[in-house]
Amino acid sequence: MTSSSAASVICTVDVVLLTLQQGELHVALLRRERAPFAGVLALPGGYIHAQEDADAHASAARVLRDKAALQSPYLEQLATFSGPARDPRGWSVAVAYFALVPHGLLSGAPLVTLAPVAQLPPLPFDHGAMVEAAVARVRSKSQYSSLPVHLCAEPFTLPQLQAVYEAVLGEPLNKVSFRRKMDELELLEPLPGELQTGGAHRPAQLYRVRPPYRRCLSLSPRGL
Amino acid sequence: MTSSSAASVICTVDVVLLTLQQGELHVALLRRERAPFAGVLALPGGYIHAQEDADAHASAARVLRDKAALQSPYLEQLATFSGPARDPRGWSVAVAYFALVPHGLLSGAPLVTLAPVAQLPPLPFDHGAMVEAAVARVRSKSQYSSLPVHLCAEPFTLPQLQAVYEAVLGEPLNKVSFRRKMDELELLEPLPGELQTGGAHRPAQLYRVRPPYRRCLSLSPRGL
Repeated sequence: MTSSSAASVICTVDVVLLTLQQGELHVALLRRERAPFAGVLALPGGYIHAQEDADAHASAARVLRDKAALQSPYLEQLATFSGPARDPRGWSVAVAYFALVPHGLLSGAPLVTLAPVAQLPPLPFDHGAMVEAAVARVRSKSQYSSLPVHLCAEPFTLPQLQAVYEAVLGEPLNKVSFRRKMDELELLEPLPGELQTGGAHRPAQLYRVRPPYRRCLSLSPRGL
Repeated sequence: MTSSSAASVICTVDVVLLTLQQGELHVALLRRERAPFAGVLALPGGYIHAQEDADAHASAARVLRDKAALQSPYLEQLATFSGPARDPRGWSVAVAYFALVPHGLLSGAPLVTLAPVAQLPPLPFDHGAMVEAAVARVRSKSQYSSLPVHLCAEPFTLPQLQAVYEAVLGEPLNKVSFRRKMDELELLEPLPGELQTGGAHRPAQLYRVRPPYRRCLSLSPRGL
């Protein structure tokens, strides 16, 4: 192949940024500043900057930082979408990532519009398929990993974390087996002496995620 | 961004083609015809051809057809590898795929060298990391899906298929629970009246994969 053929492919990244709002998964959308689809709500995305990005993961982190004011949330490669028709600018490769953030982190991102994944507005490019793939991946991985903790603001109680798992999985979980699973994942550390007080219940222990699992997942051999 | 920045990224595909030889997973390597690394054993790969490929999956299928004489084996996207240093030609995005084929299918591919994944030779680019990621993915997915059937030449008996699963997973499986799992996957259809005869055992029923699962996977909610 000649390099002119290689050069005719457009390389971008897109990020499916998910959060929980009122117990429902929502995706972050931004109004596009330029053509194609200027003014339309779409996933945060952009060209790979070969001059500055260490890899496509760094491109996705830069897009979140520059366009949604988010610093290093949990970010994982989803899949790569490609072809001649998905972008009107030409044959394109879009490396899609998904990110999970606690809802409160988006208070510093006033340009973000949250849309419930169960009722998405029409999205340009193949962004609808990207959201669908990300939600399926997050639901599937939540069965056997620590992934949902990244949706939960720290510190949290075990009932709060269980509610986050239940919101992602869309089904109630048994309290005893949920606590056993969290023990197996070796994921959490109690904050010494810190208890959540107030409300009708007795004070509850507060937890945070152990450092090894703030950037990667703890996996369980069996599902929840 | 200007399009000149987008155009400076090289877009390729690479394929980790796996097969079983003497009960061990092997990866198919080809000697590279041109620079960089001309003459060195590497994964089959090449540029995306924007003029002819429908998407990166089609690019990977074309690479297997043109370089390894393989028509439409089981082929799935693995992950995308990227960065300024992985390819001496420049900042590159390589969409990596994995393929599974029965060993016999490679008899028509005389240029292919098989290397055991447990003892890989040094490979150029980040091909070593790609093989490692593919083997981890195949082992993990084999726990709960029909993936290993694509390593098994049709028709096969249930003991033959069990041996393939055991080779991939690297551990013996219980015969009764293996057969129950195959029933749950609704994966196989018996060939009417066709039995494997000969040998010390009584004739065994021969099976093939049901059409819906020749291109996609049947998934099980629980592992083997």
